[in-house]
Amino acid sequence: MNSRLLSLLLLLMSFSLLQAQQSSEIPAKYEDDARVIRRIYDEVMHHSSSYDWLHYLTKRIGARLSGTPEAAAAVEYTRQVMDTMGLDAVRLEPCMVPHWQRGTYEEARIVNSNKVGSMDIKAVALGGSIGTGPMGITADVVEVRSLNEVDTLGDAVAGKIVFYNRPMDPTRINTFNAYGGAVDQRALGAARAGKYGAVGVLVRSMTTSLDDVPHTGSMTYLPDINPIPAMGISTKDAELLSRLLQEEEVRVFMRNNSSMASEKESYNVIGEIRGSTYPDEIILVGGHLDSWDLGEGAHDDGAGCVHALGVIEALKRMNYQPKRTIRCVMFMNEENGLRGGRTYWKNSFEANEYHLAAIESDRGGFSPRGFSVEGHADIFAEGYKFISSWLPLLEPYGITFEIGGSGADIGGLKDQKGLLFGLVPDSQRYFDFHHTGADVLENVNKRELELGTASMAALVYLLDQYGFKN
Amino acid sequence: MNSRLLSLLLLLMSFSLLQAQQSSEIPAKYEDDARVIRRIYDEVMHHSSSYDWLHYLTKRIGARLSGTPEAAAAVEYTRQVMDTMGLDAVRLEPCMVPHWQRGTYEEARIVNSNKVGSMDIKAVALGGSIGTGPMGITADVVEVRSLNEVDTLGDAVAGKIVFYNRPMDPTRINTFNAYGGAVDQRALGAARAGKYGAVGVLVRSMTTSLDDVPHTGSMTYLPDINPIPAMGISTKDAELLSRLLQEEEVRVFMRNNSSMASEKESYNVIGEIRGSTYPDEIILVGGHLDSWDLGEGAHDDGAGCVHALGVIEALKRMNYQPKRTIRCVMFMNEENGLRGGRTYWKNSFEANEYHLAAIESDRGGFSPRGFSVEGHADIFAEGYKFISSWLPLLEPYGITFEIGGSGADIGGLKDQKGLLFGLVPDSQRYFDFHHTGADVLENVNKRELELGTASMAALVYLLDQYGFKN
Repeated sequence: MNSRLLSLLLLLMSFSLLQAQQSSEIPAKYEDDARVIRRIYDEVMHHSSSYDWLHYLTKRIGARLSGTPEAAAAVEYTRQVMDTMGLDAVRLEPCMVPHWQRGTYEEARIVNSNKVGSMDIKAVALGGSIGTGPMGITADVVEVRSLNEVDTLGDAVAGKIVFYNRPMDPTRINTFNAYGGAVDQRALGAARAGKYGAVGVLVRSMTTSLDDVPHTGSMTYLPDINPIPAMGISTKDAELLSRLLQEEEVRVFMRNNSSMASEKESYNVIGEIRGSTYPDEIILVGGHLDSWDLGEGAHDDGAGCVHALGVIEALKRMNYQPKRTIRCVMFMNEENGLRGGRTYWKNSFEANEYHLAAIESDRGGFSPRGFSVEGHADIFAEGYKFISSWLPLLEPYGITFEIGGSGADIGGLKDQKGLLFGLVPDSQRYFDFHHTGADVLENVNKRELELGTASMAALVYLLDQYGFKN
Repeated sequence: MNSRLLSLLLLLMSFSLLQAQQSSEIPAKYEDDARVIRRIYDEVMHHSSSYDWLHYLTKRIGARLSGTPEAAAAVEYTRQVMDTMGLDAVRLEPCMVPHWQRGTYEEARIVNSNKVGSMDIKAVALGGSIGTGPMGITADVVEVRSLNEVDTLGDAVAGKIVFYNRPMDPTRINTFNAYGGAVDQRALGAARAGKYGAVGVLVRSMTTSLDDVPHTGSMTYLPDINPIPAMGISTKDAELLSRLLQEEEVRVFMRNNSSMASEKESYNVIGEIRGSTYPDEIILVGGHLDSWDLGEGAHDDGAGCVHALGVIEALKRMNYQPKRTIRCVMFMNEENGLRGGRTYWKNSFEANEYHLAAIESDRGGFSPRGFSVEGHADIFAEGYKFISSWLPLLEPYGITFEIGGSGADIGGLKDQKGLLFGLVPDSQRYFDFHHTGADVLENVNKRELELGTASMAALVYLLDQYGFKN
């Protein structure tokens, strides 16, 4: 009995030690800000609607590929959410978007292996791919590890299916770096193989996970090169196919009827709270409404949308009157065209706007670790130094700054000479779900999501209070 | 076409920016160490058996409560794993452990509400609880928020079921702090209520998640206080019960046949590589083999066990000959007695051993963020300062140090005046699974798990190279 009590007390003591943990010292000039940021986190962790909105976007609306009725529903839904927030203005910004359709069938199959006979391959058409025609394509497979290897093989790939199989590097700690080191195969593989007369491509899915889940994602054709169909295949099937190819020739059948429909009108959704003192200095928070058509677009980028909406909600609930204009933007068509982003930039420059800062969340709803920051060379060094003085306010929440890309939808604002931020969540699980049928609400943790909302709201507050210049 | 290509190039550019991200500067004297640590991470991310071992512990063996055949199987399994590693010694350290049994039934039910009539409550016996007897207990419920509130109510709780309902504070960023602020209700609630004649207790589960999953966990009785049965109930049912109690008296029926069986002999499993230069300076890595009987003990603490085993595996695969003795310990009975830990301490002090350092992993297999560090007052300040010079080597992997408790199984080594470390993974999801049927392999991410292994191996390497004293 006594021994069990002792162990219990040891347990409780160890928690006390944890609680006693020192926090960074807050400079005296930031003491009020520390209290406000604490209130922001409290507000979000108790009352944020971020998760409920994400539930609607994923379970009621679902996948939201540009040009689809679901994308239109997401525009209307987030417009209505903004309408309930008491903003100073809510509007839709029209843009034309491509409308790619996966079609009614897609399949791939090993047809002649001595080892496995006939075997289905888990495959999905890559976004933007043309179809094979109703009879499909059957051809020998040539495995390569890079675009350059296709150049080396040259005409030897003519009439073949080129199989890109360079894995994402599992030793890169930030999985986005591993993605950046492999995604050229998906994006440009069909164009490169088509140049030499290949008839189709299969691309190993962009994930370090070894599983049965094929990934889609954007690919592009190039002018004057014959377009050929392209499919992503699961990493397990990629491993198997590669092993077979070491021992025998393998023929694969692939078939899909994807196609590009006519462009559709769609919208960015924009709401804002006007600044009391510097209304012409805009602080943008945003994510993108559209998603790939597999799964529900939960992490990519439902999470980013509800992060941005949650920032506005928290500030309004706290009756915070910003000095600068806080603008929330749901961008359309990040995945396969960036039409929303580019329309926004064009209109913004034409209106002579100045974005003091823009923050995009587009790396999932995982536990936040910080923000990546970029900006025009004229202001970046000074700005980065200035905001680094805020770190004692953010580090208690696990948030830091790093130099790096911000977000695809806001990158074009750089010439306005504000600072551009990307929310950086923990990246380890992102590519388990990215562009797959597994990108569903069940794989989003509510607390992790809400911490992202709070972290963005804290940064918006500091940018609003201080700008980034001495 | 051109516009899509442009967007693709923008996408690729943003990844290049990410990759260009600056890393902390490595002091010249640590350049070789930076290369070794990079090799450690590469080795683990490519070849670690951590996840496969965890698969065996969870799916083949399952829950491993002290005294059960499954706990014995886990001893034998991890001993066999160590036997395959080419260690200098592998041994079992005997200890007697309590053997609590959940029994064959457990249930709780609201029996008389005007609002909901009769309604089942999702409930599990707390670990160590006695049973109610076969007829169960039916009594009015009194809701409280703290042990102190029970003292205030005093004899008013006599004959009642006391319902502890103070939630974990969702605004604590580190969820272990929220746990530390609520777990006294589970640990001591029955003893406090029993003191005033209550007949049973229900305790709101230790999680910030609002769900249907009841949590178990250790509780204790005190000398000279009548023991009464105790159950954990799901947070959703706790919320419902609390709402009902605001409007009406509620009677609850609770029934279980948990009991304490006779003590059993069990073991810590210990393997080591002897140091070449300072064999008497021990660096311990460990986790605990036992788990609660719900779920599979995947995060708690199968993950910690395979982290520790994975450290040894990586060092052996790299043919690393340590200067100091690296010892891997699978502790028994952390959850409800700490007998393994205390046996280990006793034997270690009697043998005049010196643990230069001990590292326990017992906070789950999530993405690692660093290590908490504690130590005897005579050496802590100097040691903490010394090891902080290693941060430029660890920060590229997202690892930092913080002052705080280490681990329950190693805390008793403090008087040997070494440094004690606890692996600190991201804590956001831990209490979704802790001590529940949801603590299963499916909720462990392979990459996140392996990064924990690599981080511990990197720290072991640095401790082995440099100790912690100038």
